[in-house]
Amino acid sequence: MFLPHKILEYKLLQIFAEDVGQGDITTSVVVADGTKAEANVIAKQSGIVAGIEEAIILLESLGLEVKALITDGQEVKERQVLLNVSGNARNILTVERTLLNILSRMSGIATATRNLVKKLQKSKLKTKVACTRKTAPGLMYFDKKAVHVGGGDTHRLHLDDMILIKNNHITIAGSVKKAVETAKKSASLTKKVEVEVTKIEDILNAVRSGADIVMLDNFPPKKVRKAVDLLIENSLRGKVLLEASGGITSENVLDYASTGVDLVSLGELTHSPRALDISLEITKATKKI
Amino acid sequence: MFLPHKILEYKLLQIFAEDVGQGDITTSVVVADGTKAEANVIAKQSGIVAGIEEAIILLESLGLEVKALITDGQEVKERQVLLNVSGNARNILTVERTLLNILSRMSGIATATRNLVKKLQKSKLKTKVACTRKTAPGLMYFDKKAVHVGGGDTHRLHLDDMILIKNNHITIAGSVKKAVETAKKSASLTKKVEVEVTKIEDILNAVRSGADIVMLDNFPPKKVRKAVDLLIENSLRGKVLLEASGGITSENVLDYASTGVDLVSLGELTHSPRALDISLEITKATKKI
Amino acid sequence: MFLPHKILEYKLLQIFAEDVGQGDITTSVVVADGTKAEANVIAKQSGIVAGIEEAIILLESLGLEVKALITDGQEVKERQVLLNVSGNARNILTVERTLLNILSRMSGIATATRNLVKKLQKSKLKTKVACTRKTAPGLMYFDKKAVHVGGGDTHRLHLDDMILIKNNHITIAGSVKKAVETAKKSASLTKKVEVEVTKIEDILNAVRSGADIVMLDNFPPKKVRKAVDLLIENSLRGKVLLEASGGITSENVLDYASTGVDLVSLGELTHSPRALDISLEITKATKKI
Amino acid sequence: MFLPHKILEYKLLQIFAEDVGQGDITTSVVVADGTKAEANVIAKQSGIVAGIEEAIILLESLGLEVKALITDGQEVKERQVLLNVSGNARNILTVERTLLNILSRMSGIATATRNLVKKLQKSKLKTKVACTRKTAPGLMYFDKKAVHVGGGDTHRLHLDDMILIKNNHITIAGSVKKAVETAKKSASLTKKVEVEVTKIEDILNAVRSGADIVMLDNFPPKKVRKAVDLLIENSLRGKVLLEASGGITSENVLDYASTGVDLVSLGELTHSPRALDISLEITKATKKI
Amino acid sequence: MFLPHKILEYKLLQIFAEDVGQGDITTSVVVADGTKAEANVIAKQSGIVAGIEEAIILLESLGLEVKALITDGQEVKERQVLLNVSGNARNILTVERTLLNILSRMSGIATATRNLVKKLQKSKLKTKVACTRKTAPGLMYFDKKAVHVGGGDTHRLHLDDMILIKNNHITIAGSVKKAVETAKKSASLTKKVEVEVTKIEDILNAVRSGADIVMLDNFPPKKVRKAVDLLIENSLRGKVLLEASGGITSENVLDYASTGVDLVSLGELTHSPRALDISLEITKATKKI
Amino acid sequence: MFLPHKILEYKLLQIFAEDVGQGDITTSVVVADGTKAEANVIAKQSGIVAGIEEAIILLESLGLEVKALITDGQEVKERQVLLNVSGNARNILTVERTLLNILSRMSGIATATRNLVKKLQKSKLKTKVACTRKTAPGLMYFDKKAVHVGGGDTHRLHLDDMILIKNNHITIAGSVKKAVETAKKSASLTKKVEVEVTKIEDILNAVRSGADIVMLDNFPPKKVRKAVDLLIENSLRGKVLLEASGGITSENVLDYASTGVDLVSLGELTHSPRALDISLEITKATKKI
Repeated sequence: MFLPHKILEYKLLQIFAEDVGQGDITTSVVVADGTKAEANVIAKQSGIVAGIEEAIILLESLGLEVKALITDGQEVKERQVLLNVSGNARNILTVERTLLNILSRMSGIATATRNLVKKLQKSKLKTKVACTRKTAPGLMYFDKKAVHVGGGDTHRLHLDDMILIKNNHITIAGSVKKAVETAKKSASLTKKVEVEVTKIEDILNAVRSGADIVMLDNFPPKKVRKAVDLLIENSLRGKVLLEASGGITSENVLDYASTGVDLVSLGELTHSPRALDISLEITKATKKI
Repeated sequence: MFLPHKILEYKLLQIFAEDVGQGDITTSVVVADGTKAEANVIAKQSGIVAGIEEAIILLESLGLEVKALITDGQEVKERQVLLNVSGNARNILTVERTLLNILSRMSGIATATRNLVKKLQKSKLKTKVACTRKTAPGLMYFDKKAVHVGGGDTHRLHLDDMILIKNNHITIAGSVKKAVETAKKSASLTKKVEVEVTKIEDILNAVRSGADIVMLDNFPPKKVRKAVDLLIENSLRGKVLLEASGGITSENVLDYASTGVDLVSLGELTHSPRALDISLEITKATKKI
Repeated sequence: MFLPHKILEYKLLQIFAEDVGQGDITTSVVVADGTKAEANVIAKQSGIVAGIEEAIILLESLGLEVKALITDGQEVKERQVLLNVSGNARNILTVERTLLNILSRMSGIATATRNLVKKLQKSKLKTKVACTRKTAPGLMYFDKKAVHVGGGDTHRLHLDDMILIKNNHITIAGSVKKAVETAKKSASLTKKVEVEVTKIEDILNAVRSGADIVMLDNFPPKKVRKAVDLLIENSLRGKVLLEASGGITSENVLDYASTGVDLVSLGELTHSPRALDISLEITKATKKI
Repeated sequence: MFLPHKILEYKLLQIFAEDVGQGDITTSVVVADGTKAEANVIAKQSGIVAGIEEAIILLESLGLEVKALITDGQEVKERQVLLNVSGNARNILTVERTLLNILSRMSGIATATRNLVKKLQKSKLKTKVACTRKTAPGLMYFDKKAVHVGGGDTHRLHLDDMILIKNNHITIAGSVKKAVETAKKSASLTKKVEVEVTKIEDILNAVRSGADIVMLDNFPPKKVRKAVDLLIENSLRGKVLLEASGGITSENVLDYASTGVDLVSLGELTHSPRALDISLEITKATKKI
Repeated sequence: MFLPHKILEYKLLQIFAEDVGQGDITTSVVVADGTKAEANVIAKQSGIVAGIEEAIILLESLGLEVKALITDGQEVKERQVLLNVSGNARNILTVERTLLNILSRMSGIATATRNLVKKLQKSKLKTKVACTRKTAPGLMYFDKKAVHVGGGDTHRLHLDDMILIKNNHITIAGSVKKAVETAKKSASLTKKVEVEVTKIEDILNAVRSGADIVMLDNFPPKKVRKAVDLLIENSLRGKVLLEASGGITSENVLDYASTGVDLVSLGELTHSPRALDISLEITKATKKI
Repeated sequence: MFLPHKILEYKLLQIFAEDVGQGDITTSVVVADGTKAEANVIAKQSGIVAGIEEAIILLESLGLEVKALITDGQEVKERQVLLNVSGNARNILTVERTLLNILSRMSGIATATRNLVKKLQKSKLKTKVACTRKTAPGLMYFDKKAVHVGGGDTHRLHLDDMILIKNNHITIAGSVKKAVETAKKSASLTKKVEVEVTKIEDILNAVRSGADIVMLDNFPPKKVRKAVDLLIENSLRGKVLLEASGGITSENVLDYASTGVDLVSLGELTHSPRALDISLEITKATKKI
């Protein structure tokens, strides 16, 4: 998910501009123009950091100097300093909240993702952990990037990068078979076709119609295992990737992963992440002479 | 927080456009052009609904017909239908995720807010529950609107609508007194001046320098009560609003509120809300003849 | 009104882009690519300068070097040089008009504001001079910033930073009392509530309902004084700020201010300012070799 | 200057959005959702109206019904009603100021333009009255449109629609002759070439080099007449249009026009117009039942 | 490639706005406000039509009525009428060129694509015809949509929807093998991995490393056939899609397709299409009474 | 057509952003963050180069170093290096296609234009070669700039820079005479008036009504010559510019030009240009240590 800095800067400044409105009236009256300051960005709890790339771009776009003491994806401890920032004091104070909102949300998502990834790794499972498109509205890029930093699979980045046939599509198309066949005939050869199935009977139809990925929607672990077995029995396991989705949590993720699916996906990673507590502290200020 | 629909529509379409990218390639191949459908938007768990106004604007901007069975701020039960949607099936399927992301996040925030508000009301406390600027990046409007729908106080809407002198400002200004005095002298008479204090000794300075609101930063309930008493003793309680902030949770909110402060504020309401589970189900589809 | 430079730059470039259209066809044919030039920005009449910050950002965004010989809010004499500009000659010539339009309008507003402010200061009056939202369309930021530079109160920066109940609102709400009471109950505690009254009888209602500011709409000076007295008699003067608005001019401003109101506001400052005459003169040009 | 409504609507909504910010917090608390209202837009002084087309587009974009009782360019008397507006009361109140700011500025410009145009017509002079690019920053379209409505010549609409060689260009090019010759050789045949001359001696050079229009910069009326005579003597009057610019006011415009120039241009029309006083009055409101 | 109309409308209006600038000054002076007209959009040569969906959205956004006599992807004959348009004459004349530029380019691309597709179909070949990202700058959506309408494969829609490892990537990565292996390990499971090979020896490496698609870059037909055979010999033909690219033209396309590759791709379809000649003729005009 | 770099940069980044989408997923996984590279941009065929200015701005906006070995308008041979680029390898690879799409299209247009210009120059004809508004949708600036670089006349830059009365306007206006007279009366004196005539009889009407340019629409060369003679006979040749348009190709352009018209215009230059083949080759890469 490499976004050239100039384009990412533009996204960040739009977010910043919403918060600034017609200007920071507090900083304007309390901090003299020309004041220089130094500040630290500090983790108030341990976790995996994400958003460091974004933080640097945002701060530098305001003419501030930044020294990053950590990189995206690394683990931080409580009270660990992430960034040293220095320069125009007004800019530091005005951007503080936007900066922290980005870092906290992205780090929260990365932390939750990494926890799951590690859990599977410890159990020597190769199952990948993926997020969904259930992000905060308009934050598809930032939320997916954070999952990526945490070690997860970003899944679809928007509606144009994979064919994913969901239940509502099937309702309209008539059947899994019809939907997948139509998709395979019409879709670009450059795109994978995934289909969501709710009944175990549909899995063979899906694979035989050419689906590249089958999503087992709200299957409990036992039923997921049955689905895996069914494919093995029919010598189709190698033809398709299997994704389990719905009802997966930190608690039961090993039950799902140990069934042998390729991918488990959780909406929660991006729709309800807990922000990591991060703050900014001014350490030094030099008034303009 | 009345935003004319035409302006809100533009915000919503920008969010939608990010998800759509170069187009919905699934719907394009699986659903024939001209297909009509009907769908229900359904709560999968109980809570307070927010985002209905936004949902209607978004859906209608795509030419869809919407019948809202509920209004913002009302309580829903599990499986309750919020909206009937009908029209072009491709539009319904393409907008589904953006629509649900907005409704789920806003309803999650409104639900958490309402729970706190009710808790205080049951205890006959008049303390207001407020959010902070710790929102998802770029979602200041939507997150604050949801707090408002839940019955909370939106606090600052961005950096230009109130003077709020925080610790970092005071570090630079030198003292609470100096900071507040400068602010009162320079700021527009149309704006309130709030100041964050970390030490009980600074409260009198703040009020006597003219602060309209004093924020007690990370004071435990006992210390908050001391602050209230101090003002009463000095006959200053009527001169100022008191806000407690930092460390307040659903569990201890009554301890804070019962101290007699005017306002308790929680970053958590908007930086780490749990999305309310809401889904869309196609109930009928008519292929183009 | 501190707007980080990167955000202000974006506003300035949008203004510039409108003037440039598909490109400056004159400069393109008359001035060889690579020509360097030096220029002075000169006041053609005396006044208070505003827009220097904006000028510097705009010029530097084009890669030009700028030396400011004056800062915002200072007084200039006729023929005084404000800025030395040097660099790419085409950029200087293309940006000339946009630059001067910004400087001239903002300086015109600052000059008119300062004249009023000084008048009151000479008479030892503490009344503040404020503008209104009657600005040139879309220039709320620039017009308000210029008032601020001139020493005036910016009043509301847009519709979200204060409750201001005007006659049309009262017509709908039913009465001053009802409108103010509703506002106090529903509005965020972080916002002041101002109400416009047209009848002297409504003043006590307004204050007792909790208004923070009362605007006396189109009251002649005598009636304004009566209003002040009424509040004093009822021991309410300290509870509220008073703003006189409507019909105030440079000629009668002392009559209004001497009544003891806190604020006088004039639409004219921003809806009909006279631009300060400022021009740009190329002083040296070096053709590309 | 025909701008399709959909494009004009977008410009208007951007202006509106700046004023609205995060929403109209007054209307939101004082006016119940669903309230309907009727209002009149009324001239508080006589003049020429402009901005009616813009007003209708803006109001209709918000779903309001508008009945225009006048069209752009017509004369209004004091207290004359320009528009009847009806519909959602919140929209009417929120858009009120943006609407009036547009109407007042544009009508002010149209009124001043028409006064000059009429003055010349009364004296049976065919000289055209033009504005310059000295507009409010970013309002080139609206200011020029208002001049057009008032009966004036819009002159350049931005930097790409005519070659206009000004003094600063000549300083760099070396001479009027060189500048015009270069322009005629390189410029598109679809564009006119105008050149500003400060010395009477340059006029013949300009015309013989092919200038389509010669601008006499800061020539007093006598000198303007000399310039006209010079061209007649040299049988060149029919080859070129003459524009007088600089120092022209309402008082001396006849002196300039009677010299026989084709065009007089005044920066003042758009850089320092007096707004026409126009207001909006709610005449009826029906609360939602 | 289904793009909701509201989002497509926005793209179309941005294109239109560039052409309109400050307004259509011809239509403004020559056509009276309120004039109604009817017009036909007519093909001046035979071909496959694309852009009809876009045309309808653009015209309707201006309030014009449109009757489409043909749909995207159909064949037209010379002089065949594509659309009847009626409504505001100024809008029709102002939008004419933007409308025709879109229709002509898209139809030109669709026509060239269809010609190739038909050629392969006549020879009973199942090879797909694809375009590349070599489009007109900024027209990725419109150019790809036209290829789709013509029956071609759109290939990548931008840089985020498939991993496509090109020679320059391999230069940096070190080898085809290393590049593909890294990609398979790190990329989302939802994306296909394609790799460009220039040497026949690399094909087996590519497939064995897990490439989903192998692009044979600038292989002449004979060498392409060799590549196909190599895969068959190694029992790998079913594991991978083969794409031939570089040097393919309308003349030699059958030679390439008959080798048994799955896909032939041509940059020419979108970087150098010949526009289809289409024009608009006013058939009736009714002046405003 | 001088567009300040900051404004051009913004246009270029919008084009780039469409291609990038949510990020370059190939480069992200195959090229390590921090890798530096050097690359050459190379012409694969001979022609006239355009887009070098644009290329430099785009590359430098990404922090890349560029050394241009050629300037816009110069001729290149096959395999000639146009630019050396160095810096962040990811940026180079991500921008490659956007960069080449711009250079290839603009150079293709410049090459075709220059071929025509040279043809006329060899025959000592002074006729200018012009393009029309038949560009790729939304690429008016880039296409016209390329024509300019090739030595052609850009003609109208959009709808606001000249009055051009076309057949459809005349159908509505009633006659050439009426249309031109209305235009001359109402249009700004700063704009030329051009009219398209389809019948030789209309030419004298057009000129006598004041048209500055007459476009002979789809006249074969003989008829064009007749038109020229007609004007000479009536001593009107010096009063007007003549433009031949419609049906002009590289083959017959001399026949048209030799008739003595001032301008020949061809839609083909911009609606169907052949892209010049240009590519980018990584020459060196240094992995991050």
